[in-house]
Amino acid sequence: MDKLQRNERVAVLLKLLSDSPGKTFNLGVFTEMFGSAKSSISEDIDIVGNLLERFGIGSIETITGASGGVRYIPSLSRKNIAAILENLCGELSKRERILPGGFLYMLDIISHPEKVTEIGRIFASQFCSKAVDYVITVETKGIPLAFTTARFLNVPLVIVRHYNEATDGASVNINYVSGSSKQIQTMALSLKSLKRNSSLLFIDDFMKGGGTAKGIIELAKEFDCEISGIGVLIEKVEPYKKLVENYFSILTLNKVDEENGIIDIRPSSSWK
Amino acid sequence: MDKLQRNERVAVLLKLLSDSPGKTFNLGVFTEMFGSAKSSISEDIDIVGNLLERFGIGSIETITGASGGVRYIPSLSRKNIAAILENLCGELSKRERILPGGFLYMLDIISHPEKVTEIGRIFASQFCSKAVDYVITVETKGIPLAFTTARFLNVPLVIVRHYNEATDGASVNINYVSGSSKQIQTMALSLKSLKRNSSLLFIDDFMKGGGTAKGIIELAKEFDCEISGIGVLIEKVEPYKKLVENYFSILTLNKVDEENGIIDIRPSSSWK
Repeated sequence: MDKLQRNERVAVLLKLLSDSPGKTFNLGVFTEMFGSAKSSISEDIDIVGNLLERFGIGSIETITGASGGVRYIPSLSRKNIAAILENLCGELSKRERILPGGFLYMLDIISHPEKVTEIGRIFASQFCSKAVDYVITVETKGIPLAFTTARFLNVPLVIVRHYNEATDGASVNINYVSGSSKQIQTMALSLKSLKRNSSLLFIDDFMKGGGTAKGIIELAKEFDCEISGIGVLIEKVEPYKKLVENYFSILTLNKVDEENGIIDIRPSSSWK
Repeated sequence: MDKLQRNERVAVLLKLLSDSPGKTFNLGVFTEMFGSAKSSISEDIDIVGNLLERFGIGSIETITGASGGVRYIPSLSRKNIAAILENLCGELSKRERILPGGFLYMLDIISHPEKVTEIGRIFASQFCSKAVDYVITVETKGIPLAFTTARFLNVPLVIVRHYNEATDGASVNINYVSGSSKQIQTMALSLKSLKRNSSLLFIDDFMKGGGTAKGIIELAKEFDCEISGIGVLIEKVEPYKKLVENYFSILTLNKVDEENGIIDIRPSSSWK
């Protein structure tokens, strides 16, 4: 391969680093790939870092020491987050989203690649400073959000099912009580899914009473794992008292007024 | 914002274009963003295109006319695909993956961000020349693969459930017969999920008899939609006669020999 020019190196570096958020790259990898001196690569990486900060889409972290290198931190600027939240609230408060029973239709948002990517970045931005070994979620609707968050944090995703499939081997099953409907449900997780003593980030699309999150905490204990964070896209304001504490929500759904066709949804107070 | 240098523009362009595969960007967006002449931006984009082809990770397509512009096509070079397939087969044929009953444990692969991204790129590479309005999948295990493929094709994902949730509104439900177990199962899809007369790409992790794919074709008919492609990560060689034709599989599982601990899995003949 011909030697790359600086403009090509900077572009490739930005792509490589931002395609693998959280992954540490030793500078030696790049000096070999580009056939350039370490000092040139360092300058290239400074340019990449400046660009990311200028556009508010992350930063480059330098890790010193023998196993050191550089990695991309997928943080978002306040300005970018504010724009995403405003857009989401505008989209979610359209009256045609109101379903019979006063439910809010949001399937299109939580499975739309661009929107999910934005939301996943917000979760990653929020939790990237914590030690997270896995992102965990419960089937089905939160999976794209949880997967995207896992991708930005560069850790595997673990999906808890409502029943165990023969094709996934032995599982741990627990029963839990839904926080709002008070129904007993089952969670099943394949034994091979998690390494003991791991730190888990629970991501879901919606929280009402917090029963699912509490169930996940119980399930994690069976694997000697702990939940280091809980992130939900939307929390319903009622019930005020949730079954878990210390969760992070992006938006709060205050009210769906079926009669008058009004949806009151806002950025959560965690942003203040 | 200060005017960007060429090396900065090339990097930002590569990132913007490759972060939104399939999305057409009018050059005017970039001339405004960078405050540069159209001729400079065109040269920048040529550099981006050359870089992508050099690394075998896609190309830039120019669309002429009033609504024209440039877009990133996430195709992969044969060399890159071959490397991904070799790596996947090596990983999947490790004997510790054999589960009681001769099943193959693959949950870790189909929910690992880096591997799923590679596989999603292969699907996108295969189907990007077809008209696809939505990627469709059935819960649960194929969701990360289907979502990633949807992201690379820049179309929404639609998730078919096994039952309808009240919070998702009215649904169309159909019964179908699993191709291998001959059991009757239900598929439910929210009425709001699909626009009529759309073209769908079905993506799943595994195909045995093809019953699920056949069910999806039936379900699509109820929405006046058609399946323009079927892609699965792994097909089981038996039964030879599947319930659907014209599907694309990445790998073929020939045999899991539980007694001797041997898994025979290879790139599918579609690659020949």
